[in-house]
Amino acid sequence: MQMADIIEREVKLKLESPTLAELYAKLLNDGMQLIKKETEEDIYFNSEFRDFRKTDEALRIRKTDSGIEFTYKGPKIGKISKSREEITVNVNNADNLIKILERLGFKPVYTVVKNRIFLKDGEFIICLDSVKDLGEFIEIEIPNSTEEKLIEYVNLFLEKYKIKATQIKKSYLELLVSKNEENNSNSN
Amino acid sequence: MQMADIIEREVKLKLESPTLAELYAKLLNDGMQLIKKETEEDIYFNSEFRDFRKTDEALRIRKTDSGIEFTYKGPKIGKISKSREEITVNVNNADNLIKILERLGFKPVYTVVKNRIFLKDGEFIICLDSVKDLGEFIEIEIPNSTEEKLIEYVNLFLEKYKIKATQIKKSYLELLVSKNEENNSNSN
Repeated sequence: MQMADIIEREVKLKLESPTLAELYAKLLNDGMQLIKKETEEDIYFNSEFRDFRKTDEALRIRKTDSGIEFTYKGPKIGKISKSREEITVNVNNADNLIKILERLGFKPVYTVVKNRIFLKDGEFIICLDSVKDLGEFIEIEIPNSTEEKLIEYVNLFLEKYKIKATQIKKSYLELLVSKNEENNSNSN
Repeated sequence: MQMADIIEREVKLKLESPTLAELYAKLLNDGMQLIKKETEEDIYFNSEFRDFRKTDEALRIRKTDSGIEFTYKGPKIGKISKSREEITVNVNNADNLIKILERLGFKPVYTVVKNRIFLKDGEFIICLDSVKDLGEFIEIEIPNSTEEKLIEYVNLFLEKYKIKATQIKKSYLELLVSKNEENNSNSN
Protein backbone atom coordinates (compact mmCIF):
# COMPACT_ATOMS: atom_id res chain seq x y z
CA MET A 1 0.00 0.00 0.00
CA GLN A 2 1.25 3.46 -0.91
CA MET A 3 0.84 6.05 1.82
CA ALA A 4 2.06 9.03 -0.15
CA ASP A 5 -1.42 10.43 -0.70
CA ILE A 6 -2.22 10.54 2.98
CA ILE A 7 -2.51 14.01 4.37
CA GLU A 8 -4.39 13.54 7.64
CA ARG A 9 -2.63 13.34 10.99
CA GLU A 10 -4.57 10.14 11.56
CA VAL A 11 -4.53 7.03 9.39
CA LYS A 12 -7.16 4.31 9.51
CA LEU A 13 -6.49 0.85 8.11
CA LYS A 14 -8.79 -2.11 7.59
CA LEU A 15 -6.78 -5.07 8.81
CA GLU A 16 -6.63 -8.19 6.65
CA SER A 17 -3.75 -10.02 8.33
CA PRO A 18 -2.50 -10.82 10.87
CA THR A 19 -5.47 -10.84 13.28
CA LEU A 20 -5.83 -7.99 15.75
CA ALA A 21 -5.07 -10.38 18.62
CA GLU A 22 -1.83 -11.54 16.98
CA LEU A 23 -0.76 -8.00 16.23
CA TYR A 24 -1.59 -6.88 19.77
CA ALA A 25 0.60 -9.64 21.22
CA LYS A 26 3.50 -8.63 18.95
CA LEU A 27 3.22 -4.94 19.81
CA LEU A 28 3.20 -5.62 23.54
CA ASN A 29 6.13 -7.96 23.08
CA ASP A 30 8.03 -5.17 21.32
CA GLY A 31 7.60 -2.97 24.35
CA MET A 32 4.72 -0.74 23.28
CA GLN A 33 2.88 0.78 26.20
CA LEU A 34 -0.74 -0.20 26.84
CA ILE A 35 -2.66 2.98 27.67
CA LYS A 36 -6.13 1.50 28.11
CA LYS A 37 -8.71 -0.92 26.79
CA GLU A 38 -12.18 0.44 26.35
CA THR A 39 -15.57 -0.49 24.97
CA GLU A 40 -17.09 2.45 23.11
CA GLU A 41 -20.73 2.56 22.12
CA ASP A 42 -21.46 5.48 19.80
CA ILE A 43 -25.08 6.37 19.17
CA TYR A 44 -25.51 8.67 16.18
CA PHE A 45 -28.56 10.87 15.73
CA ASN A 46 -30.18 12.45 12.76
CA SER A 47 -32.59 15.38 12.78
CA GLU A 48 -36.17 15.59 11.61
CA PHE A 49 -35.46 19.11 10.40
CA ARG A 50 -32.29 18.70 8.40
CA ASP A 51 -30.44 15.64 7.17
CA PHE A 52 -27.03 15.49 8.85
CA ARG A 53 -25.78 13.25 6.05
CA LYS A 54 -26.40 16.08 3.63
CA THR A 55 -25.11 18.83 5.90
CA ASP A 56 -22.06 16.73 6.89
CA GLU A 57 -22.76 17.22 10.59
CA ALA A 58 -22.81 14.57 13.30
CA LEU A 59 -24.49 14.31 16.69
CA ARG A 60 -23.26 11.55 18.92
CA ILE A 61 -23.59 10.09 22.40
CA ARG A 62 -20.52 8.04 23.30
CA LYS A 63 -20.76 5.59 26.18
CA THR A 64 -17.46 4.28 27.48
CA ASP A 65 -16.32 2.54 30.64
CA SER A 66 -15.21 5.90 31.98
CA GLY A 67 -18.26 8.03 31.21
CA ILE A 68 -20.70 9.48 28.70
CA GLU A 69 -19.91 12.18 26.16
CA PHE A 70 -22.31 14.24 24.05
CA THR A 71 -20.64 15.58 20.91
CA TYR A 72 -21.55 17.77 17.97
CA LYS A 73 -19.32 17.72 14.90
CA GLY A 74 -19.66 20.42 12.28
CA PRO A 75 -19.09 20.02 8.54
CA LYS A 76 -15.54 19.31 7.41
CA ILE A 77 -13.69 22.52 6.63
CA GLY A 78 -11.54 22.31 3.50
CA LYS A 79 -10.93 19.23 1.41
CA ILE A 80 -7.41 18.62 2.55
CA SER A 81 -7.19 19.05 6.30
CA LYS A 82 -10.46 17.28 7.15
CA SER A 83 -10.62 19.47 10.26
CA ARG A 84 -14.05 20.20 11.67
CA GLU A 85 -15.57 21.91 14.67
CA GLU A 86 -16.07 19.46 17.51
CA ILE A 87 -17.87 20.39 20.74
CA THR A 88 -18.26 17.96 23.65
CA VAL A 89 -19.85 17.90 27.08
CA ASN A 90 -19.85 15.10 29.62
CA VAL A 91 -23.25 13.96 30.87
CA ASN A 92 -24.29 11.66 33.68
CA ASN A 93 -27.16 9.77 32.05
CA ALA A 94 -27.28 8.55 28.44
CA ASP A 95 -30.88 7.27 28.54
CA ASN A 96 -32.21 10.62 29.69
CA LEU A 97 -30.20 12.51 27.09
CA ILE A 98 -31.57 10.18 24.38
CA LYS A 99 -35.11 10.96 25.60
CA ILE A 100 -34.47 14.71 25.56
CA LEU A 101 -33.04 14.52 22.01
CA GLU A 102 -36.01 12.45 20.83
CA ARG A 103 -38.45 15.02 22.23
CA LEU A 104 -36.54 17.74 20.37
CA GLY A 105 -36.79 15.98 17.02
CA PHE A 106 -33.61 13.90 16.85
CA LYS A 107 -33.61 10.17 16.30
CA PRO A 108 -30.93 7.57 17.00
CA VAL A 109 -30.12 6.10 13.58
CA TYR A 110 -26.89 4.11 13.95
CA THR A 111 -24.92 2.60 16.78
CA VAL A 112 -21.22 1.82 16.39
CA VAL A 113 -19.83 -0.53 19.03
CA LYS A 114 -16.14 -1.17 19.23
CA ASN A 115 -13.57 -2.64 21.55
CA ARG A 116 -10.59 -0.37 21.42
CA ILE A 117 -7.06 -0.93 22.67
CA PHE A 118 -4.93 2.21 23.00
CA LEU A 119 -1.18 1.73 22.67
CA LYS A 120 1.63 4.25 22.75
CA ASP A 121 4.84 4.04 20.74
CA GLY A 122 6.86 7.14 21.51
CA GLU A 123 4.83 10.05 20.20
CA PHE A 124 2.50 7.81 18.16
CA ILE A 125 -0.87 6.54 19.38
CA ILE A 126 -2.03 3.23 17.96
CA CYS A 127 -5.64 2.12 18.36
CA LEU A 128 -6.54 -1.49 17.70
CA ASP A 129 -10.27 -1.47 16.99
CA SER A 130 -12.59 -4.43 16.76
CA VAL A 131 -15.80 -2.94 15.37
CA LYS A 132 -19.10 -4.80 15.54
CA ASP A 133 -20.36 -5.77 12.05
CA LEU A 134 -17.34 -4.13 10.37
CA GLY A 135 -14.22 -6.08 11.36
CA GLU A 136 -10.77 -5.16 12.63
CA PHE A 137 -9.02 -1.84 12.14
CA ILE A 138 -5.87 0.00 13.11
CA GLU A 139 -5.81 3.74 13.69
CA ILE A 140 -2.47 5.47 13.98
CA GLU A 141 -2.16 9.10 14.94
CA ILE A 142 0.46 11.58 15.94
CA PRO A 143 -0.67 14.68 17.79
CA ASN A 144 1.04 17.98 17.06
CA SER A 145 3.36 16.82 14.34
CA THR A 146 3.66 16.62 10.54
CA GLU A 147 1.97 14.36 7.99
CA GLU A 148 5.40 13.37 6.67
CA LYS A 149 6.36 11.90 10.01
CA LEU A 150 3.10 9.99 10.22
CA ILE A 151 3.40 8.55 6.71
CA GLU A 152 6.97 7.47 7.35
CA TYR A 153 5.97 5.78 10.59
CA VAL A 154 2.96 4.01 9.10
CA ASN A 155 5.02 2.61 6.21
CA LEU A 156 7.66 1.28 8.58
CA PHE A 157 4.95 -0.11 10.88
CA LEU A 158 3.23 -2.01 8.05
CA GLU A 159 6.51 -3.42 6.85
CA LYS A 160 7.83 -4.43 10.27
CA TYR A 161 4.70 -6.34 11.29
CA LYS A 162 3.98 -7.75 7.81
CA ILE A 163 0.55 -6.19 7.87
CA LYS A 164 -1.89 -6.53 5.00
CA ALA A 165 -4.32 -3.67 5.25
CA THR A 166 -6.33 -1.22 3.19
CA GLN A 167 -6.47 2.44 3.98
CA ILE A 168 -9.93 3.62 4.84
CA LYS A 169 -10.98 7.26 4.49
CA LYS A 170 -14.52 6.80 5.75
CA SER A 171 -15.59 6.94 9.36
CA TYR A 172 -16.98 3.82 11.06
CA LEU A 173 -20.40 5.43 10.86
CA GLU A 174 -20.06 5.93 7.10
CA LEU A 175 -18.87 2.34 6.68
CA LEU A 176 -21.85 1.05 8.64
CA VAL A 177 -24.27 3.18 6.63
CA SER A 178 -22.74 1.93 3.34
CA LYS A 179 -22.93 -1.66 4.50
CA ASN A 180 -26.51 -1.27 5.58
CA GLU A 181 -27.50 0.26 2.25
CA GLU A 182 -25.80 -2.57 0.34
CA ASN A 183 -27.70 -5.11 2.41
CA ASN A 184 -30.95 -3.30 1.75
CA SER A 185 -30.37 -3.14 -1.99
CA ASN A 186 -29.34 -6.84 -2.03
CA SER A 187 -32.50 -7.88 -0.27
CA ASN A 188 -34.71 -5.99 -2.72
CA MET B 1 -56.17 35.95 49.61
CA GLN B 2 -58.35 32.90 49.17
CA MET B 3 -56.49 29.66 48.56
CA ALA B 4 -59.50 27.45 47.98
CA ASP B 5 -59.01 27.37 44.22
CA ILE B 6 -55.45 26.07 44.41
CA ILE B 7 -55.00 22.55 43.23
CA GLU B 8 -51.25 22.27 42.64
CA ARG B 9 -48.91 20.68 45.14
CA GLU B 10 -46.83 23.84 44.85
CA VAL B 11 -47.96 27.39 45.51
CA LYS B 12 -46.12 30.46 44.29
CA LEU B 13 -46.73 33.87 45.86
CA LYS B 14 -45.51 37.32 44.86
CA LEU B 15 -44.47 38.91 48.13
CA GLU B 16 -45.63 42.45 48.87
CA SER B 17 -44.80 42.62 52.57
CA PRO B 18 -42.82 42.01 54.68
CA THR B 19 -39.54 41.94 52.76
CA LEU B 20 -37.95 38.58 52.00
CA ALA B 21 -35.11 39.41 54.41
CA GLU B 22 -37.51 40.18 57.25
CA LEU B 23 -39.52 37.03 56.58
CA TYR B 24 -36.36 34.91 56.41
CA ALA B 25 -35.22 36.19 59.81
CA LYS B 26 -38.62 35.38 61.34
CA LEU B 27 -38.70 31.87 59.88
CA LEU B 28 -35.22 31.06 61.17
CA ASN B 29 -36.17 32.50 64.52
CA ASP B 30 -39.20 30.18 64.62
CA GLY B 31 -36.91 27.18 64.21
CA MET B 32 -37.29 26.43 60.51
CA GLN B 33 -34.40 24.49 59.10
CA LEU B 34 -32.16 26.09 56.47
CA ILE B 35 -31.47 23.50 53.78
CA LYS B 36 -29.35 25.59 51.44
CA LYS B 37 -28.89 28.93 49.74
CA GLU B 38 -28.27 28.86 46.04
CA THR B 39 -27.93 31.12 43.04
CA GLU B 40 -29.75 29.66 40.06
CA GLU B 41 -29.24 30.92 36.54
CA ASP B 42 -31.77 29.42 34.14
CA ILE B 43 -31.14 29.85 30.43
CA TYR B 44 -34.22 29.07 28.34
CA PHE B 45 -34.00 28.11 24.69
CA ASN B 46 -36.42 28.28 21.83
CA SER B 47 -36.25 26.31 18.60
CA GLU B 48 -35.94 27.52 15.03
CA PHE B 49 -38.19 24.67 13.97
CA ARG B 50 -41.09 24.95 16.35
CA ASP B 51 -42.09 27.64 18.82
CA PHE B 52 -41.91 26.22 22.36
CA ARG B 53 -44.27 28.95 23.55
CA LYS B 54 -46.92 27.54 21.24
CA THR B 55 -46.14 23.89 21.96
CA ASP B 56 -45.92 24.56 25.72
CA GLU B 57 -42.49 22.92 25.95
CA ALA B 58 -39.37 24.24 27.66
CA LEU B 59 -35.67 23.62 27.22
CA ARG B 60 -33.44 24.88 29.99
CA ILE B 61 -29.86 24.93 31.19
CA ARG B 62 -29.73 25.57 34.95
CA LYS B 63 -26.44 26.70 36.46
CA THR B 64 -26.23 26.47 40.24
CA ASP B 65 -23.43 26.47 42.78
CA SER B 66 -23.56 22.69 42.82
CA GLY B 67 -23.61 21.94 39.08
CA ILE B 68 -25.28 22.28 35.71
CA GLU B 69 -28.54 20.65 34.67
CA PHE B 70 -30.01 20.27 31.19
CA THR B 71 -33.78 19.85 31.28
CA TYR B 72 -36.60 19.27 28.83
CA LYS B 73 -40.17 19.92 29.97
CA GLY B 74 -43.06 18.60 27.93
CA PRO B 75 -46.46 20.25 27.54
CA LYS B 76 -48.67 20.35 30.62
CA ILE B 77 -50.92 17.30 30.82
CA GLY B 78 -54.46 18.10 31.94
CA LYS B 79 -55.74 21.46 33.08
CA ILE B 80 -55.96 20.58 36.72
CA SER B 81 -52.86 18.72 37.79
CA LYS B 82 -50.36 20.84 35.82
CA SER B 83 -48.12 17.77 35.67
CA ARG B 84 -45.71 17.52 32.77
CA GLU B 85 -42.93 15.30 31.60
CA GLU B 86 -39.58 16.50 32.88
CA ILE B 87 -36.27 14.93 31.82
CA THR B 88 -32.92 16.07 33.21
CA VAL B 89 -29.27 15.24 32.79
CA ASN B 90 -26.27 16.73 34.56
CA VAL B 91 -23.56 18.16 32.34
CA ASN B 92 -20.04 19.39 33.06
CA ASN B 93 -19.86 22.46 30.82
CA ALA B 94 -22.68 24.96 30.21
CA ASP B 95 -20.86 27.00 27.55
CA ASN B 96 -20.20 23.95 25.38
CA LEU B 97 -23.78 22.74 25.73
CA ILE B 98 -25.02 26.20 24.67
CA LYS B 99 -22.78 25.99 21.59
CA ILE B 100 -24.05 22.51 20.70
CA LEU B 101 -27.67 23.66 21.06
CA GLU B 102 -27.02 26.72 18.90
CA ARG B 103 -25.50 24.56 16.15
CA LEU B 104 -28.62 22.36 16.29
CA GLY B 105 -31.01 25.26 15.82
CA PHE B 106 -31.85 26.33 19.37
CA LYS B 107 -31.36 29.85 20.65
CA PRO B 108 -31.11 31.16 24.20
CA VAL B 109 -34.03 33.55 24.55
CA TYR B 110 -34.44 34.32 28.27
CA THR B 111 -32.32 34.04 31.37
CA VAL B 112 -33.91 33.90 34.81
CA VAL B 113 -31.51 34.58 37.67
CA LYS B 114 -32.62 34.07 41.25
CA ASN B 115 -31.18 33.80 44.71
CA ARG B 116 -33.07 31.03 46.40
CA ILE B 117 -33.18 30.07 50.06
CA PHE B 118 -34.54 26.58 50.79
CA LEU B 119 -36.17 26.10 54.20
CA LYS B 120 -37.85 23.05 55.69
CA ASP B 121 -40.83 23.13 58.03
CA GLY B 122 -41.74 19.54 58.80
CA GLU B 123 -42.83 18.03 55.51
CA PHE B 124 -43.15 21.43 53.80
CA ILE B 125 -40.43 23.01 51.68
CA ILE B 126 -40.38 26.80 51.55
CA CYS B 127 -38.34 28.63 48.94
CA LEU B 128 -37.63 32.31 49.36
CA ASP B 129 -36.81 33.61 45.90
CA SER B 130 -35.33 36.93 44.94
CA VAL B 131 -35.68 37.01 41.17
CA LYS B 132 -33.76 39.48 39.04
CA ASP B 133 -36.09 42.02 37.35
CA LEU B 134 -39.19 40.40 38.90
CA GLY B 135 -39.03 40.89 42.68
CA GLU B 136 -39.52 38.65 45.70
CA PHE B 137 -41.49 35.42 45.80
CA ILE B 138 -42.34 32.55 48.11
CA GLU B 139 -42.82 29.02 46.86
CA ILE B 140 -44.32 26.45 49.18
CA GLU B 141 -44.51 22.80 48.30
CA ILE B 142 -45.30 19.49 49.91
CA PRO B 143 -44.00 16.37 48.21
CA ASN B 144 -46.14 13.25 48.18
CA SER B 145 -49.17 14.67 49.94
CA THR B 146 -52.58 16.22 49.24
CA GLU B 147 -53.59 19.62 47.96
CA GLU B 148 -55.86 20.06 50.97
CA LYS B 149 -52.92 19.82 53.33
CA LEU B 150 -50.95 22.33 51.26
CA ILE B 151 -53.81 24.84 51.12
CA GLU B 152 -54.38 24.59 54.86
CA TYR B 153 -50.68 25.12 55.55
CA VAL B 154 -50.36 28.08 53.18
CA ASN B 155 -53.36 29.84 54.73
CA LEU B 156 -51.95 29.40 58.22
CA PHE B 157 -48.50 30.51 57.04
CA LEU B 158 -49.84 33.72 55.48
CA GLU B 159 -51.83 34.52 58.60
CA LYS B 160 -49.07 33.76 61.08
CA TYR B 161 -46.45 35.93 59.38
CA LYS B 162 -48.88 38.70 58.33
CA ILE B 163 -47.88 38.24 54.74
CA LYS B 164 -49.37 40.30 51.94
CA ALA B 165 -48.94 38.35 48.75
CA THR B 166 -50.61 37.52 45.45
CA GLN B 167 -50.82 34.01 44.13
CA ILE B 168 -48.99 33.60 40.83
CA LYS B 169 -49.85 30.83 38.40
CA LYS B 170 -47.22 31.73 35.84
CA SER B 171 -43.63 30.52 35.83
CA TYR B 172 -40.79 33.00 36.28
CA LEU B 173 -40.05 32.60 32.60
CA GLU B 174 -43.63 33.50 31.67
CA LEU B 175 -43.53 36.50 34.01
CA LEU B 176 -40.30 37.69 32.43
CA VAL B 177 -41.69 37.25 28.91
CA SER B 178 -44.86 39.20 29.84
CA LYS B 179 -42.82 41.98 31.41
CA ASN B 180 -40.56 42.17 28.39
CA GLU B 181 -43.51 42.36 25.99
CA GLU B 182 -45.11 45.13 28.08
CA ASN B 183 -41.88 47.10 27.96
CA ASN B 184 -41.64 46.61 24.22
CA SER B 185 -45.21 47.74 23.61
CA ASN B 186 -44.68 50.76 25.91
CA SER B 187 -41.61 51.82 24.02
CA ASN B 188 -43.38 51.62 20.65
